[in-house]
Amino acid sequence: MQQQLSVITLGIADLERSQRFYREGFGWTPVFANEEIAFYQMNGFVLGTWLTSRLEEDMQRPGLAHPGAFALAHNVASQDEVQPLIERLVTAGGLLLRAGDAPVHGGYRGYVADPDDHAWEIAWNPAWTIDARGLVTFAP
Amino acid sequence: MQQQLSVITLGIADLERSQRFYREGFGWTPVFANEEIAFYQMNGFVLGTWLTSRLEEDMQRPGLAHPGAFALAHNVASQDEVQPLIERLVTAGGLLLRAGDAPVHGGYRGYVADPDDHAWEIAWNPAWTIDARGLVTFAP
Repeated sequence: MQQQLSVITLGIADLERSQRFYREGFGWTPVFANEEIAFYQMNGFVLGTWLTSRLEEDMQRPGLAHPGAFALAHNVASQDEVQPLIERLVTAGGLLLRAGDAPVHGGYRGYVADPDDHAWEIAWNPAWTIDARGLVTFAP
Repeated sequence: MQQQLSVITLGIADLERSQRFYREGFGWTPVFANEEIAFYQMNGFVLGTWLTSRLEEDMQRPGLAHPGAFALAHNVASQDEVQPLIERLVTAGGLLLRAGDAPVHGGYRGYVADPDDHAWEIAWNPAWTIDARGLVTFAP
């Protein structure tokens, strides 16, 4: 079976507020948006932001909790880019969780929550390659 | 800025239980694993499963909640593959949330939670292309 994931869907409360964060913070453009969902074409998969009530209905699982036990990461090309991006995300409506610093395992990273409490790690990891299409390859 | 995500890290309680689900359910092999984390090389990004306590420490955010307001999706090539995969995931320690059926927007899908309560949608979506490397392209 393909070691493949097609979509990450984040539950959101307010489409406009969420799109402001992803558009003005990350600079990303939705490939599709209507009154309940926005899709972003990512590096080999799709990121969806969908009203939590609709996601709960679709999943048949009411009572989804915040903040969830997961983190998403966006890697940048150099250490110097980490803190400016964190600050831009906060300006765009994010919540600072951890300012950029160096973890023991190397590199540099900080964390920001999006307006719906979903955590994004902003990281510089010199060991991992990211090609021109944004495809990320693991290295130990 | 690249419309790129590098890692999805899921908080887990028990590495062996989690690996059984991903190995025997999805048939996936970690590219790296130690006593606190396992990484899976995916289609252009990396999936991490990390002890929740360590993720909370790294994120400086205690009290991560379950089930989080998000879903991951794995798409299959035909409608007939949805229900057998859901059943295999349940046998490997998953929890059935919704058996496969057809949503109004087309295709076919069901949901299973992994042993740490993270929801996976198993979907057939005839409109979206998935290439041989597993790279997924959005289509309306």
